[in-house]
Amino acid sequence: MATPASKIKFREPQIEMAHGAGGKASRRLVEGLFAPLLFDPAQGPLGDAAHVQINGTRIAITTDSFVVKPLKFPGGSIGELAINGTVNDLAVSGARAEAIVVTYVLEAGLLTEVLEAEVRAMARAAQQAGVRIAGGDTKVVEHGKADHMYITTTGVGRLIPGVTISPANVKPGDKILLSGPIGDHGITILLARGELDLEAEIRSDTRSVLPLVESLVQAVGGSVHWMRDPTRGGVATSLNELSRDCEHGIVLFEEKIPVRDSVRGACELLGLDPLHIANEGQFLAVVSSGQAETALLALRSTAAGAESEIIGEVRDQPAGSVLMTTCYGGSRLVDMLVGDPLPRIC
Amino acid sequence: MATPASKIKFREPQIEMAHGAGGKASRRLVEGLFAPLLFDPAQGPLGDAAHVQINGTRIAITTDSFVVKPLKFPGGSIGELAINGTVNDLAVSGARAEAIVVTYVLEAGLLTEVLEAEVRAMARAAQQAGVRIAGGDTKVVEHGKADHMYITTTGVGRLIPGVTISPANVKPGDKILLSGPIGDHGITILLARGELDLEAEIRSDTRSVLPLVESLVQAVGGSVHWMRDPTRGGVATSLNELSRDCEHGIVLFEEKIPVRDSVRGACELLGLDPLHIANEGQFLAVVSSGQAETALLALRSTAAGAESEIIGEVRDQPAGSVLMTTCYGGSRLVDMLVGDPLPRIC
Repeated sequence: MATPASKIKFREPQIEMAHGAGGKASRRLVEGLFAPLLFDPAQGPLGDAAHVQINGTRIAITTDSFVVKPLKFPGGSIGELAINGTVNDLAVSGARAEAIVVTYVLEAGLLTEVLEAEVRAMARAAQQAGVRIAGGDTKVVEHGKADHMYITTTGVGRLIPGVTISPANVKPGDKILLSGPIGDHGITILLARGELDLEAEIRSDTRSVLPLVESLVQAVGGSVHWMRDPTRGGVATSLNELSRDCEHGIVLFEEKIPVRDSVRGACELLGLDPLHIANEGQFLAVVSSGQAETALLALRSTAAGAESEIIGEVRDQPAGSVLMTTCYGGSRLVDMLVGDPLPRIC
Repeated sequence: MATPASKIKFREPQIEMAHGAGGKASRRLVEGLFAPLLFDPAQGPLGDAAHVQINGTRIAITTDSFVVKPLKFPGGSIGELAINGTVNDLAVSGARAEAIVVTYVLEAGLLTEVLEAEVRAMARAAQQAGVRIAGGDTKVVEHGKADHMYITTTGVGRLIPGVTISPANVKPGDKILLSGPIGDHGITILLARGELDLEAEIRSDTRSVLPLVESLVQAVGGSVHWMRDPTRGGVATSLNELSRDCEHGIVLFEEKIPVRDSVRGACELLGLDPLHIANEGQFLAVVSSGQAETALLALRSTAAGAESEIIGEVRDQPAGSVLMTTCYGGSRLVDMLVGDPLPRIC
C-alpha cells in the first residue's frame, strides 16, 4: 500500500461527469487520487485487468460498473455490456474469463420484467462467451436514487499461455491493428436517447472479442506486445495512454481506420471525432513488424474480424504523442478525450 | 448455465426496498429470478463466496455493492464497510482475502473531499486486513441519479487449509458460536440518520473478522462446519437459511445472546428484534459438540472475540426452523426478516 500522506494531486473541488468519461479528466482522478491512495506503485501502469497471485497461480481480475442510459439500445443492452465488457477487459490483458460475479443496484419501483430481461441478457452473453456466473449481490435504493439499475461485473480468468501484454514490450516499428469499424457503440447510444433529430441504421458492436484475441495469439503468440479494448475515450484515448506509457510515438493512417458512413456522418453533424467515440466489441493490438501481416490474416480469417486493419505504427517520435497522417496527406496531433460529449455510454 | 426457460417463479411485478433487505423478499428474488437464470444448480446453496477453479487452483471470490446511508456514521463509513464486508465474506467461506478490486458510481457534484475521505478509509481498512487493492473502475452519473456514491468491492482469496464450510456438514448436536454483541451496526445507522428522537452511545462494529476466523480454524480446524457473517437480516435470517439448507432444527438460548443495553433499548422502542438487525463485524460458526468449548476459548483468547458465546445448538427438530428458548423459560419460533425496517444499512 502506498503511503497516503503526500501524493494527492487531484485538485478539483468536486466530481463532474467528465471524470467518468474515460478521457483526460478520468486520468487525473485515477492518477491524482485513487492510485496514490489505493494502488501499490510496484504494480506498474494500470491495465484493463490486474494480475494477482493466489497459491502460486497467477490469475487475472477486472471489475467495471455499468450505468449506460438507456438500458436497451439497438444491438444490445446493459446486461450484455456488463458481461462482454468484463470478458473483453480480461481478453486484452491476455486472459480467458473463467468466472464472473455480478452486483445489481436497483431502484425501487423497477419493473420486474425490465430486470428479468437484463438477467436473461447476461445469462445469454455469458453462455456465448463461455464464462460461468458464480455469484452476486443485490441492493435496492429508493426510487430516484438510481437510474433504473446499475450493474457491476467482476471477472477472474486464467492467463493465455505465450502472451505477455505490457507497454514496456512496445517498440518502434511495431504495427497497430484494429479489429473493425470504430464508433458504432457510442453513436448508437447517442441516437437511442432520442434527444437528437437524427436517425441512422446503426447498432452497438457489443460482443466478446475473446475469439479474436485467441486467434491472434495462436497465430503470432509472443509477437503481440499490447492489447486494449478502446471503450470510453475511444481509440484516441487508448493510444494516447499507450504512447505515454511506452514513451514512443504512434502514427495513425487515417485512410486505414474503418469508420462506417453512418458513424462518420453523425460525428460530422455533432462535431465529434470518431477516434474519441466508445467501442464495446473492438480491440487494438500492437504486434511486432515482422508478424503484423500474419496477425492481420489471422484476425481476418475469423468472421468477427473480417474488417480488421493495420491502422498505424509505433515510431521513435513524437514520443508520448499520437499523430495522424490524414487522407489529404497532412498530419495532425490526436489528443485524448477532453470533457464528456457522450455521458453514460457504458 | 441453467436452461432459462421454465424455472422463474418470482411473481412480484416490481422491485421494492424489501428485495434488498437480505430477508425473505431478497431470498424470493434470488431463488425465483437470479438463481434459475444465472447460476448452475450444481453449485449447490449460495454461500457468502463462490469457489472457482483456475488452472487447478481453487480460489474464493465474493462481490458486494454498498449503498449505506449516511456515508459516515459512528465507528465507520461506507469505505470501511466495503473493504471489511468483502474480507469477511471470504473469511466465513474459509478463505483469506488476497486482492480486492473496487468500483465507484459517483454522483456528479460529489465533493472531492468526501470521496477522498472514503478512498483513504478503504486504504486504511485494506492495510489493516492485510489485503491488496489491485484495480478499479469509476463511473459518474448525473446529479440526482445516485446518492453521493455507491461502492462495489470484489475480493479473491486463497482457501484456508483444513476447513470446509458447508451446510451439509452441519449435524445435530453441533454448537452455534457467535463472536460478540449483535445489532450494533444496524442501530448505529438508524440513529445516524437523525430521523428518530433517540440518542445512544453506540458505534458500528465494522471490522475484519479474519483474525477471529483464523484463530478458530487454528484451534479446531475441521470441526468448524459452517460460518456466516450475519449482515442484512441479522442472526435470525442467517440461521434460518442454515436450518433450511442443512434440514435440521436450530435452538437458540436467549440468555446467551450478547446484546448491548443501548441496542436492546432502541429495539424495544422501535418494535424491532435484535436478531433481525444487521451486524458488520460479527460472525456465526457451527462447531462439532466435542470441540465447542475449545473453539469458544480460542475466540475469547483474541481481544476482538472476548465477548464470544455459545448461543445455541443444532437439533433434529424442528427441521428447517429456528426456535429460541427465552429467558423466561418459554420458547418461540424465530423467523427470517420480513419487510425492510432498516433500508440501506450497508
